[in-house]
Formats: sequence, C-alpha cells, structure tokens
Amino acid sequence: MKAATAIGIGATCALILMAGIMEGVSPPALINIAAAMIVFGGTSGAVFASVGMKRFMLIPKLYIKAFTAEYADKSARVSTLVNFAERARKDGLLALEEDIESIEDPFLKKGMQLVVDGTDPDLLYEILDSEIDAMTARHKDGHSVFEKGGGLAPTIGVLGTVVSLIHVLGNLSAPETLGPLIAGAFLATLYGVGSANVVFYPVCYTLQALSAAEADERRLVLEGIMAIQAGDNPRVAQEKLLSYLSPEQRAVILGDDGKGGGSSASEPAAAQAA
Amino acid sequence: MKAATAIGIGATCALILMAGIMEGVSPPALINIAAAMIVFGGTSGAVFASVGMKRFMLIPKLYIKAFTAEYADKSARVSTLVNFAERARKDGLLALEEDIESIEDPFLKKGMQLVVDGTDPDLLYEILDSEIDAMTARHKDGHSVFEKGGGLAPTIGVLGTVVSLIHVLGNLSAPETLGPLIAGAFLATLYGVGSANVVFYPVCYTLQALSAAEADERRLVLEGIMAIQAGDNPRVAQEKLLSYLSPEQRAVILGDDGKGGGSSASEPAAAQAA
Amino acid sequence: MKAATAIGIGATCALILMAGIMEGVSPPALINIAAAMIVFGGTSGAVFASVGMKRFMLIPKLYIKAFTAEYADKSARVSTLVNFAERARKDGLLALEEDIESIEDPFLKKGMQLVVDGTDPDLLYEILDSEIDAMTARHKDGHSVFEKGGGLAPTIGVLGTVVSLIHVLGNLSAPETLGPLIAGAFLATLYGVGSANVVFYPVCYTLQALSAAEADERRLVLEGIMAIQAGDNPRVAQEKLLSYLSPEQRAVILGDDGKGGGSSASEPAAAQAA
Amino acid sequence: MKAATAIGIGATCALILMAGIMEGVSPPALINIAAAMIVFGGTSGAVFASVGMKRFMLIPKLYIKAFTAEYADKSARVSTLVNFAERARKDGLLALEEDIESIEDPFLKKGMQLVVDGTDPDLLYEILDSEIDAMTARHKDGHSVFEKGGGLAPTIGVLGTVVSLIHVLGNLSAPETLGPLIAGAFLATLYGVGSANVVFYPVCYTLQALSAAEADERRLVLEGIMAIQAGDNPRVAQEKLLSYLSPEQRAVILGDDGKGGGSSASEPAAAQAA
Amino acid sequence: MKAATAIGIGATCALILMAGIMEGVSPPALINIAAAMIVFGGTSGAVFASVGMKRFMLIPKLYIKAFTAEYADKSARVSTLVNFAERARKDGLLALEEDIESIEDPFLKKGMQLVVDGTDPDLLYEILDSEIDAMTARHKDGHSVFEKGGGLAPTIGVLGTVVSLIHVLGNLSAPETLGPLIAGAFLATLYGVGSANVVFYPVCYTLQALSAAEADERRLVLEGIMAIQAGDNPRVAQEKLLSYLSPEQRAVILGDDGKGGGSSASEPAAAQAA
Repeated sequence: MKAATAIGIGATCALILMAGIMEGVSPPALINIAAAMIVFGGTSGAVFASVGMKRFMLIPKLYIKAFTAEYADKSARVSTLVNFAERARKDGLLALEEDIESIEDPFLKKGMQLVVDGTDPDLLYEILDSEIDAMTARHKDGHSVFEKGGGLAPTIGVLGTVVSLIHVLGNLSAPETLGPLIAGAFLATLYGVGSANVVFYPVCYTLQALSAAEADERRLVLEGIMAIQAGDNPRVAQEKLLSYLSPEQRAVILGDDGKGGGSSASEPAAAQAA
Repeated sequence: MKAATAIGIGATCALILMAGIMEGVSPPALINIAAAMIVFGGTSGAVFASVGMKRFMLIPKLYIKAFTAEYADKSARVSTLVNFAERARKDGLLALEEDIESIEDPFLKKGMQLVVDGTDPDLLYEILDSEIDAMTARHKDGHSVFEKGGGLAPTIGVLGTVVSLIHVLGNLSAPETLGPLIAGAFLATLYGVGSANVVFYPVCYTLQALSAAEADERRLVLEGIMAIQAGDNPRVAQEKLLSYLSPEQRAVILGDDGKGGGSSASEPAAAQAA
Repeated sequence: MKAATAIGIGATCALILMAGIMEGVSPPALINIAAAMIVFGGTSGAVFASVGMKRFMLIPKLYIKAFTAEYADKSARVSTLVNFAERARKDGLLALEEDIESIEDPFLKKGMQLVVDGTDPDLLYEILDSEIDAMTARHKDGHSVFEKGGGLAPTIGVLGTVVSLIHVLGNLSAPETLGPLIAGAFLATLYGVGSANVVFYPVCYTLQALSAAEADERRLVLEGIMAIQAGDNPRVAQEKLLSYLSPEQRAVILGDDGKGGGSSASEPAAAQAA
Repeated sequence: MKAATAIGIGATCALILMAGIMEGVSPPALINIAAAMIVFGGTSGAVFASVGMKRFMLIPKLYIKAFTAEYADKSARVSTLVNFAERARKDGLLALEEDIESIEDPFLKKGMQLVVDGTDPDLLYEILDSEIDAMTARHKDGHSVFEKGGGLAPTIGVLGTVVSLIHVLGNLSAPETLGPLIAGAFLATLYGVGSANVVFYPVCYTLQALSAAEADERRLVLEGIMAIQAGDNPRVAQEKLLSYLSPEQRAVILGDDGKGGGSSASEPAAAQAA
Repeated sequence: MKAATAIGIGATCALILMAGIMEGVSPPALINIAAAMIVFGGTSGAVFASVGMKRFMLIPKLYIKAFTAEYADKSARVSTLVNFAERARKDGLLALEEDIESIEDPFLKKGMQLVVDGTDPDLLYEILDSEIDAMTARHKDGHSVFEKGGGLAPTIGVLGTVVSLIHVLGNLSAPETLGPLIAGAFLATLYGVGSANVVFYPVCYTLQALSAAEADERRLVLEGIMAIQAGDNPRVAQEKLLSYLSPEQRAVILGDDGKGGGSSASEPAAAQAA
C-alpha cells in the first residue's frame, strides 16, 4: 500500500487523542506553545546543527518520499532481464540497442548502454556496483536525519519539562495552580516521546526499507546485466535472478512462462522453497 | 517442545496476574480500555507506519509460526545426504534421479535436481547460497517487526501514562479520586513494558532462533550436495557434515551406522568432542 | 552553508530561553554557578581523564573546525583529475610535472608527485591508502572527544542534581524555601542534558560528517590518480569518478563538457541515475 | 580460582544484606513472595518463551559450569604439541599413533587421529575449524540465555513494582499503611535489578570468558596440528604457538626447555615481549 | 602529560565537592558507610564474579598503568627503523646483529633477531602479527574489567538506594527524620553514578587508548621490519612509515634528515598532508 506510513502516523495520533478524550482530557489541555517551541524548535535546531543546511533541506522531500514511494516491482524486472537475455542470445548484444530507448529505469538503461557499448565486464561491474554503493550512502545521509531527530526529540522533551518544572517549583506559593502547571510541564515530554516514536522513527524505518529494497532491486539488475553480457543461457539467468524474489513471486513467474520452457522438474520445488 | 513460546507467554501472564491478586489487586483494576487503546493501538499504528502494509499483514502468520514451528531434524538430513553420497558413488549421479521425487524438503529437492541436471558446481553453489541468503533476509523482515514492536511499546506506554497524568494533574481539586486515577495512568506503562518483554521480544527471539536453525540446516544440506556432486568419499562427507551437529546427535549417528564402517578410531573422539 | 553548526546551536539555545520566558521563567533563575561548576567542570575533568592532555587540547581547534569548515568540492576534483588524465594521455605522465606546483590540495599533490616519480602502482596505492586510513583515525581521535562529552554530561548532570537534592533533603525544616532549592537542583540535569544534546552531539556529528566527506573525496582522488597512472581512457576515468558524485553534481559536469565529448548516449542516463 | 563466580555472587549478596541491616532494614522486610513470583517466575517464563524448552533445560548445567569450570592449561598444550612435533620429525607421523590412545582432550585426539590417517591438510583444517565454530555457536546458545535473563529481569521488576503501585494507589484511604506497601512495591525492582547485575550478567560473562578461552585453546591446538602435519621444525612450531600464551607463561616454558635448545638469543626478548 | 587520568579524576572529585559545599552541603553529609559498602563492595563482588580471580587481581596494576603510562614515541621508532634500513642496504642484514643487543623494546628486538636469523618473511610476519593480536586481546582482558565496573556501578547504586528507601518507607511515622534518610538513600546512587563516570570509564578509555597506541606502534615496527628484510630503499621505507605519524611529527622528521636526502619535492607535500 502506498501511503502506509502517513496512514499509520495519522491513525496513531487520532487514536491517542481519542483515548485521551475517553479518559477526560480536554484537547486544548494538550496544546502548549512554549513546550512545542522547545521540543520541535529545539529538535530542529539540534538536527540542523548536526547535519548542516544541505541535508536539513532534504527533510520535506524525504517526508514526501516516505509517504508516497512504492517498492519496485522486482518480478517485472526479472521478466525484462530474461527477455533481454533471450534476445541477446538469439540476435546478439547489438540487437538490444533499439530496446534501450524504451527503458525507463535509469540504472537499467545505463547498464544496458554500457553492455551495448562493449564495456569490459570487470569495468562494467565496478561502475554499476559503485553506483549502488553511492546510492546507498546518499540514502543513508537522508534517513539518518530522522534517526538523529528520533534520538534527540525525547531528551529535548525532558529538557523542556525540566525548564517548566523549574518555573513551577519557583512558584510553590500558589498550590491551586500547581496541578495544571505540572501537567503543562509534562507536555514537553509527551511531544518529545510522541514525535520520536510516532513520526521520526517510523519515517526513518520506512526510508531504510525503501533504500534496502532499491539496492536489492539494483543488485538483481546488475546480476541480470552481467548474465546478459556473459551470454548466459536465459534459463540459467532466470534461475539466478529468481533467488531475489519471494516464493510467491517466483510461483507467479514460473507459472507464467514455465509452460513453454524446459527444466520443468525444478519448478514446483522452487515455488515451494520458502 | 513445540509450543514453548505460547506456553511461556501464557504462564508468565498467569503468574503476574496471580501474584497481583496475592498482593490484593482486584483483576478489574488492571483493565483500562483507554490505556489499552493507546498502547496496543498506538504500537500497532507506529509499527504499521514503520514496516508498511505488506509486512504488517505477516504478523498473524508469524505468531502461528513462533507458537507451532519445530526445529528441523539435522540428524535425519545427515543420514539422507550420506545415503545419497553412497548411492552416487556406487551407481553414478543419475541414479539419484528417481529418489528426487520422494524428497519433501524443497531446498534439498531443488539442489539434488540441479546436481542431476549436471549444473556447474560454482553455479550450483551460487544459486543455493543466494537462496539461503534471500531466505534469511525474508525472515529478518519478519522478526524485525516484533523487534520494532518491542522497542516502541514501552515508550508508547510511557506516552499513555503522561497523557493520563496530564488529565489527573489538571483535576487536583478532588484528592479522593486521585489514587485510582494515578493507578490507571500507570496501567499504560504496565501494558507497554509487559507486552514488550512478555510477548514481543520472546516472539522475536523465537523467530530469530528458528531462522538461524533453518539457515544452519540449509548450509548443512548445501555442503552435503556439494560433496555429493564432487563425488566425495561418503565417510569424508559424513565427517564434514557431523560438525553441524551437537556431540549428542553425533553420538547417535555414529552409534547407528558406525558398526559396519571403517575409521572407528575417530568415533569415540568425535562423540566426546563437545 | 558554512556556519550551520554554530547557527543551529545558537538558535536552539535562544529558542529554549525564549520558550522558558514565555512560560514565566525569569532568566536569572536558570543560572546556578555551583551546578555549572559540577556539570561543565566535572564533564571537562572526566573527559580530560579519559582522553589525556594532548587530545583535550584539540577541543578549541575542533570547535572552530565544526563551526567553519566547508565540505570539499568533489565536482572540481573530478574535473581536475579528468584534465590530468587527458594531458597524461596526450603528452605522457612527465608532462604533469609542471602542473604539480600549482596544486593546492596536499594529498593530490603528493599523489601526483609519486606518479611523476614513477612509483610502483601497488606501492603508490598502499602509501595513499594508509594515508587516508591514518587521517580517518586521527579524525576519530578528535570527534570521539565530543562523543565522550555527550555521553558523560547527562549523567554528571544527574550527579549534580543528586548532590543538590541531598542538601535540600537535609533541610526539610524550611518548607517555604524548598521549591526554589529543588528547582535549582534540576538545573544541573538541565545543563547536562542540554549541553550533550544541543552542543556536544551536534558538534560530534558535524565532525564525523566532515571526516567522512574528506575521506570520500580522497578516495575519489586516489581512484583518479590510479587511473591516470594506468593510462586509462579519460572518459572511462570520468565514468568511474562520477559514481562518487550525487546525480545533480553529475548532471552539471556532464552538461559542461559533454558537448564536445563522445559516448553521448550514456549521459542522460547517468544524469538521471539517482 | 575455581569458584570465583559463586564466591563473588555470594559475597555480594551477603554484603548488600549486611549493609541493609546496618542501615536498619530488618531482613524479613526484604522478602515478598508476590514480588519474587513476578520477578523470578516472570523472568523464567519470558526466557522460556524466548529460547524454548531445550535451551531452557541447559540452565542448571550452565550454572554448574560457570561455578566450577577451570580455564584450560595452554602451557601444557604447547609442551604436548611441541613434543609431538619433535617425535614426528624424528620417527615420522605414524609413530604418533601409539600416543593417541593416551590423549585425554577429545579435540586434540580427533585432530591427531586425522593426521595419522593421512587426511588432506585442507580437509583437516576445514573439519577442525568448523568444529571450533560449531562449539562457539553452541556455547553462545548457552550464555545468551543468561544475557536474555539479565536484560529481561530489571524490566519485569519494574513491571512488578507498577502492579504493586496500582494496588497501593487504589487504596490511598489508609495512609498509615502506605509506607510499607510502597516499600514492598520497590522490592520487585530490587529483585529484578539485583538478580540481573549480581547473578545473570556475571554468570553470562563467566561463560563467555570460558567459551573464548576454550576456542582460543583449540585454535592453538589446530595451529599445532597443522604444523605437525606440515613437518615444521619443532622450534618454529613452538615460536608460533608461544604467541597464544601470556609473557609469563612463555617465560616458564622457555625457562624449562630453553637450556638444551638453540636460538637462545630470542628467549629473553620473547619473555619480556608483553 | 603523564598523569592526566589521575589529575582529571582528582580535579573532578575536588570540583564536585567544592560545588556541593558552595550549595551548602556539609561534607560529612556525603559520607555513608552502608551505601559505600553496597556500591563499592557490591560492584567489586559482581566484577569479581564476572571476570574471575586472575583478571580481578590485575586491577591495581591497571590503575598504575592508567595513571602513569606514557604513549610510545613513534617518531623515534621511525628514525631507528630507517637507520636500520640504511645500514642493511649498505652492509647487509647480518651487520644488524651487533645493534640488536642495544635495542630496548622487546618487540623490535625479537623482530630484528628473527630477521637476522633469516626467518622466512611469511613466517616472520605471521609470528609478529599474532604477537600483536595476542597483546591486544590481553589488553582487552584488562580494560574490559573497568568497562564492566562502569556498567555495573550505577545499577548497583540504584539497588542501594532502593534498599535504603525500603527502610525509609517502612518508618514513615517519624516525618522529621525523613529528609536526611532519603538524602542518605540517594548517596548510593551518587556513589554509583560518580564512580562509573569519574573513575571507571575514564580509566577504561585511557587503557583503551594506550592499547590502541601500542598496537599502532607495533604495526609501524612490523611494517618497518618487513621493509628491512625485503631490502627496500630506505626512502621508500620512510615514506611508508610516515603515514603512521601525524602531520606535525612528519614535519619534524622530514625537517631533520631531509636536508641530506633525495626526493625533496615530496616533503612539503607530506608535511602538509593532514
């Protein structure tokens, strides 16, 4: 599902609010401008100081990515790559040149172009591999911003609570106002713990999972491209690529094109091998 | 024992409840709908936001697995593989073809099929090895869901307690109701800490142990298949595979078929080598 | 932006102070000499005891570095190295000798000198690689000082609070002074948590990021130097080096010099490959 | 010393009890059946749920091991292996056959048997190396049980305290009983923190140290066996094996048999090289 | 500076005491025999149970080492090794024999002896490398004792506080004595947190830094010895060894002997390459 992260965060916030109301908390009692300034402003400032302007400015883009990105369809990639392998086997590597224009994924396109250009296999592997590593490092620059936010927010929340308590404790002479004041002091902790666990960490985990999935998909593409260049038998190439898929995805692919192909004995096995 | 995880969780909950009753806690005092909503709903929401729909939907299946799965019988695998190695030595690799149909384990079946198909050893190793790695990665997707739940639940419990305390502190004018209200506030912490330590982490650890045991068993099978394909002496193959077993399991196997075999001097040694 | 760390720290402190004033805290109430002595003096003492005089004396230099250092311009490095590669291809390695004088970066200068001196490629790689490792180790000596400070400050803050509370609790006979005294006790916690999260960790993270960026830039230079020495085709060298840049940086470089160069088909692909 | 772990645990418990009595705590006030049920029962249940029946049943055996096991005498192993190397040099590998019967250590016995059987060196290394790895993995299964106990006990202690506090707070109407009730509630925390730090972690660390020492000793034996099979000069073999010993142990061995041997110049150096 | 650790610990303790007195704490109020017994006795007991007699007895020696040890002078080592390399180049390896007697460092002495004895380079590397690894492992046995102490002390401090609070809460009938009693209870936390952060961790970090510096110095020596044995050009050997030094140390060495030597173009570069 596309917007799981946004839905999860929204639902959690709504649920906590609802439960609070059920207990008798009035929603305005949960709002405190000063506490919000300390926690959200302070966390932003500390994150800004930690990661610098350039990475800080990525935050809106990363939120959008976490809220809308979809995982790549690895099954489709396997089919595409096996088709290329069949074509290369039949008509030679150069026959793939006309297909390259229609490839949308830039990584696959670049890889196929390098194959058609006759790049040396070792160099081809090195270029694509360091491209994947560099992408992973860039992604880490992104999601680590949220990891730092998740680590800093609760302690800055505690800091906000301590600041408020210092005010409260300096004015013990008016005991009838004490309860609401202490309650207000705890709001900073609430904001800090809540934003870390309901927003920052889930967004960070989602970005990590997206990054891992994208790297995994590119490794699949890299392995497929190497097999195409080496002129591997398309069935052998498929066998290698299938290990990147889950058993369910494999069953679909093998059910699709298995009818016309050989080596049928290994198919039910592969389909069950979870 | 098959259902250790379920029994352990159930017994722990019963025990804590009993001890509470012994101390004078009335069981209804331990139930608070709003706190449960915050902790279980909030944790579910945050986990959902962290891992996405697809992995979230695995949770029921993973509970069933943690509660019912049994560890693979590695001793039986060793016997099977040594038998195959003996047969391959005597009658050639192709003689194994008829045995493949009766293999139940899909991984072993796939591997043996690849051997009989005459796959190149390096390719065979690569395919099976990346199959094991992919399985481990898939398993990690599963048990990390519970790990995230175990990490989030206690802090969301604290968050629930803070929400309740904010309500309590805003109403200090009625001191006679204060005790039960504060008690109720702590229920959220209780639910959070309890579910993490009594349910989420034990389930996570059980799934991790199952995954490690399955990977270990498949490494054993992989090593056995490579030995069969290489035409190793069955006794050498057995010697290699035995290092995957505990000393007790080895003693059983060596006691069973050691009578007719050679190299008897190394058997007592192996049986004791713990 | 150059001074992100200083600005972030300053803004966060100002913001927390402002929020405190909004809540009614009088700024002088946030100052406590004894608490500051315990937290800042105690943390300094414990850090000094942990890292020794020599590394302790680096602290002012490291603050200046974290507050003013800029990330290296990797795009410019790629252009320089590709230019060298083209020149070496055309006129031979020795033609680079006159360019060496004008190189400002000492690492690139040393590497080019070694190339011109005809150093053996393996030895060249070994010398430059161990230079990078040694730099990373020296940097770690630096930023780990702040990491230790960030770890020690909050607990020493708690220690200061406990010391104050011991005084407070020993004088319960004057309840009217109790509030401000307890408030004062919490200042030590405030100082400890605040300095760790707003100063020490952000400075540590900034230094880590600077160190990683510098090591990354030097790896790029090392790869470029190896390619120059090996007499690689300048376009192949550029292709390798581009993987160190972000897609945006690549687009700029390829837009710049792509017009006159060959292999144009791979450029849009590379520009998009993020 | 053999029983350091048991003595350390006993002394610590006695000391804490004594200090408590000095402060005026009456020993019966430290006993609370319900708290003990929650903490020890609950931790046992959660550990049982985490590791399953088979590993849970190892606990008594592991306690005994932690309380009685002694570290292997590596010096004696070096002497034995150097003697074997000398004999093999003089009389050939087969001359060692009669010595094998008298070897007590099963690992050394198995290794020497494989040498005398004429096993291929690579296979020999592989079998013994995977035996060591399997032993380490089995040991980890053991000591990680205590590590999990040490992690779970304090939080289950907090959980027990919360359960008790819920009872206390529900009955604020009788303030004169409040103190002892709250004191009782804290006993669960005391039991949890105490058992983790005084029992579970020390036992876990002891088992880890024993496991590391045993693996280290077997690596020494493996290196010695490989040297014997390769027909190394006994003095070279000794030089290699000595690096596994501490400087003190080396001094003893070199003092013992150095008198009759050559290469005397390196002995004082080795004896001091700490 | 030699005694940085001792001075840092002493200054921190004095500072905390002074600040406490400034706040009005009377020094005797900070002394509590029972709390000290629990924290220092209990931590000692738990550490003893964790690491055994032999490693426990190392503690006094390790304190002395942390308080007095100095870092090795790596520059001097480089000079010595380059001198040896020059001599070996001119007069042959055997000419070094007479210099060996005057070497003080046992590791360098042993290595040079092995070189003069004509040991095979691979074996020489293996012996010296495993010597370094064994030293690092022995050192880790030492500083991990303090790491365990630093981890255990704060929780045992909490345990002591809980024991005291149990006593206090059992005697709420005398409210006038309550304050000092609670204050006394917190002393155990103070002792635990203080000893961990002001003593155990700083000593542990100092020992870790000393161990890392010694291993680094021995790697330098190892590389130098390998270069001498290989008959490397002394300037190439120096170039390799310089990467182990900081830019300042390099500048000194190159300033010293650069005047008479060749390859002057690389010196300013190396001096600046920080």
